Amino acid sequence: MAGDELTHFDSAGAAHMVDIAAKPETPRMARARAKVVMAPATLERIEAGSMGKGDVLGVARLGGIAGAKQASVAIPLCHPVRLTAVEVAFELDASLPGVIVEATVSAVDRTGPEMEAMCAASSAALTIYDMCKAIDRSMTITDLCLLEKRGGKSGHWTRPPQ
Amino acid sequence: MAGDELTHFDSAGAAHMVDIAAKPETPRMARARAKVVMAPATLERIEAGSMGKGDVLGVARLGGIAGAKQASVAIPLCHPVRLTAVEVAFELDASLPGVIVEATVSAVDRTGPEMEAMCAASSAALTIYDMCKAIDRSMTITDLCLLEKRGGKSGHWTRPPQ
Amino acid sequence: MAGDELTHFDSAGAAHMVDIAAKPETPRMARARAKVVMAPATLERIEAGSMGKGDVLGVARLGGIAGAKQASVAIPLCHPVRLTAVEVAFELDASLPGVIVEATVSAVDRTGPEMEAMCAASSAALTIYDMCKAIDRSMTITDLCLLEKRGGKSGHWTRPPQ
Amino acid sequence: MAGDELTHFDSAGAAHMVDIAAKPETPRMARARAKVVMAPATLERIEAGSMGKGDVLGVARLGGIAGAKQASVAIPLCHPVRLTAVEVAFELDASLPGVIVEATVSAVDRTGPEMEAMCAASSAALTIYDMCKAIDRSMTITDLCLLEKRGGKSGHWTRPPQ
Amino acid sequence: MAGDELTHFDSAGAAHMVDIAAKPETPRMARARAKVVMAPATLERIEAGSMGKGDVLGVARLGGIAGAKQASVAIPLCHPVRLTAVEVAFELDASLPGVIVEATVSAVDRTGPEMEAMCAASSAALTIYDMCKAIDRSMTITDLCLLEKRGGKSGHWTRPPQ
Amino acid sequence: MAGDELTHFDSAGAAHMVDIAAKPETPRMARARAKVVMAPATLERIEAGSMGKGDVLGVARLGGIAGAKQASVAIPLCHPVRLTAVEVAFELDASLPGVIVEATVSAVDRTGPEMEAMCAASSAALTIYDMCKAIDRSMTITDLCLLEKRGGKSGHWTRPPQ
Repeated sequence: MAGDELTHFDSAGAAHMVDIAAKPETPRMARARAKVVMAPATLERIEAGSMGKGDVLGVARLGGIAGAKQASVAIPLCHPVRLTAVEVAFELDASLPGVIVEATVSAVDRTGPEMEAMCAASSAALTIYDMCKAIDRSMTITDLCLLEKRGGKSGHWTRPPQ
Repeated sequence: MAGDELTHFDSAGAAHMVDIAAKPETPRMARARAKVVMAPATLERIEAGSMGKGDVLGVARLGGIAGAKQASVAIPLCHPVRLTAVEVAFELDASLPGVIVEATVSAVDRTGPEMEAMCAASSAALTIYDMCKAIDRSMTITDLCLLEKRGGKSGHWTRPPQ
Repeated sequence: MAGDELTHFDSAGAAHMVDIAAKPETPRMARARAKVVMAPATLERIEAGSMGKGDVLGVARLGGIAGAKQASVAIPLCHPVRLTAVEVAFELDASLPGVIVEATVSAVDRTGPEMEAMCAASSAALTIYDMCKAIDRSMTITDLCLLEKRGGKSGHWTRPPQ
Repeated sequence: MAGDELTHFDSAGAAHMVDIAAKPETPRMARARAKVVMAPATLERIEAGSMGKGDVLGVARLGGIAGAKQASVAIPLCHPVRLTAVEVAFELDASLPGVIVEATVSAVDRTGPEMEAMCAASSAALTIYDMCKAIDRSMTITDLCLLEKRGGKSGHWTRPPQ
Repeated sequence: MAGDELTHFDSAGAAHMVDIAAKPETPRMARARAKVVMAPATLERIEAGSMGKGDVLGVARLGGIAGAKQASVAIPLCHPVRLTAVEVAFELDASLPGVIVEATVSAVDRTGPEMEAMCAASSAALTIYDMCKAIDRSMTITDLCLLEKRGGKSGHWTRPPQ
Repeated sequence: MAGDELTHFDSAGAAHMVDIAAKPETPRMARARAKVVMAPATLERIEAGSMGKGDVLGVARLGGIAGAKQASVAIPLCHPVRLTAVEVAFELDASLPGVIVEATVSAVDRTGPEMEAMCAASSAALTIYDMCKAIDRSMTITDLCLLEKRGGKSGHWTRPPQ
């Protein structure tokens, strides 16, 4: 456990945007993942489209980047963070069956881009859902979590094995 | 399976915002769910805050509503939809342990608010993550899926038992 | 008093975006006002600029229109409303001394543009503040209120004399 | 009076976003206030809801934070500012009768968060209006003003007694 | 010439968002075009990427759709319009040399999506510029114009030969 | 030619937001231009309005500034950039006939405001189109290009004579 206080509330229990002014502006990174579980036929369609026509993942990648940019609008107490890079990668996994999304976001700021990475993974996964829901409405997004973060006072963290 | 085409691409395979002009404007509804799995101590904190001080779920509810409003900005091919209601409900579940988020969105439009419901559930869950990550960075969002939709040509649909 | 319930909460006290699906889509209008009280010299500057150079009110008018468009982003439970017109008018009043802002917004929707009119008046007034704060940081925005609304079940309402 | 020029216009009188590149990036702060005057019964409702059910002020606090984030969208010549903290506090005042909103915003940037603080106070007050207008449409927002600012070339300023 | 008045100003010359409440809600369409003129080598790169790797046009298509959605934020007096479809098509033209962008937008509303089509063509062209500027900073966007519109009182219009 | 790689794709050809974390934060500037070609009568109307009533260019200037602020929302891979100044200037040119738009944007960041300048020029030109389309639907935006940039590793660049 990283600490013992919900920092998004002040001492009276009121929500606030946490004060980060005293923290140094440093390079920071966060990496998040989501899995989109789907019918085997849906995965085949996505795979068939990866060569430029009907390219679900090409659209989902931009959905992920848009999600990173919108994080502070959708998440009430999230700071706007100065993004320096956003990468969204996909792995097709027949054993799910489905797509594994991995979003890596870096920033130079006084707080880290954990929420931007989580929002990027989430938006990329939701974009896959949006594009394939006409053929597979039961798709499920699962295992959305932070895998790693670097920078800031708490330093390097990797998700412990579950 | 609801159909056999990825409607978000034209016949040449290019992505587009699907033409819905010919569909009738009717009342539509969608309901989505997400689960936030967390450490037992984190769930206790959330439960302790439900009486107005340190109210994680009160903030997350508004995060969900903000997510519904932002759906068409974060999801590239999603239409802006005329929302008529957004509800975000939470259930604390000690057996997860964690929080079950359920978002119900209604609209009167030519397409349904499925993506708005999915984005609302996702944003509410991500807001819980944001507010509790200082004490539990390993929380996982799981089982984000559509539970039900009503209205439109495809009518009433409920998620089949998995 | 227009009613006796805070409609933005459900029966359990949870905030939600109120369900308006059952209401008819009709033409609606709302008119709001704000006053910006300032030093006499500031008012003179604004008056001097009204001929196209240093036109504070020309910028503030667009600030008001932008505020109407952004209402549902800044106000958590406000519905996005289909605007059909936005007018922002100014009156220079030497007796305040200051500027009286009046915003008139119309919409065809299932709920009225009261918040859009209030946000338009507020944003126009804040834009005046922004542009003149370098010479008069003590300006005050006062008497921001709804003057009139038309349409919907509650019909025509005008602010009673105070 | 802090100066004698409307800096938001160039020498030809054209509006522009003021050049701040030459200013040092330093910690800055601004604090603004608004009062929401209402019927005594409305204030009682708000007070009754402060324990977590029907929590008007909990929603209004997030409306204020959203308003701070949206300042540069709603105010035409306002710079996007790097926010480092946003606090929105409320005081129930039976003598108004009504609610006093106080928003404190800090930033590390080349210009200060005065407009963000003013927009936060305004949005929080407008959110109170939105949530209570069903029972009290005549509520008035008044005395919206800057109380204090710190940082930057002009240094510390507090609103002089009126 | 379609008329003789600048409808975006009232009789006193003040800018406003034009009142469209009295117009019928009907299907409307607009089609706009832009050309991106570039070095022959840049066009070759774009052509080489059209098979899914380094797909400039796939990204630009989504830039165009994002531009259509953002029209009413970037254009001060533009109404938010209810989009029902957005298509962005590209033609590689060795004789320019460059890319011809064509955006077709439809809506069911009281005003037409002319600005949405113009903004879609512009954003798609600007996205091409953004992605290729590292190899060809001198690219020029030219001939951005409306080609056709349908619906509304003024009916069908096609751009006359120049 | 400034380089030989499309930096917006990784080595596998996937689009990403380019990593700029290692670049120094320095003052940067970009200047872009667009021309709006129109009927002579349209230009006369614009000229007649420049004295404060029916001021097309006053509105277009703010459209340009809004466009600069929205660049990273409309352009998928564009970084949010810290703007320090935005200027939009107009020249009426009877020989076009039309209006020449010039937008100058500065920023202190790890990447330059080229896209913000291009988007500002584009939005200002599109706003002119929006306001005058009721009298001249055939207006064309042409010659939208970067004129100059300063700062960053590639230093000072001016558009070579064509």
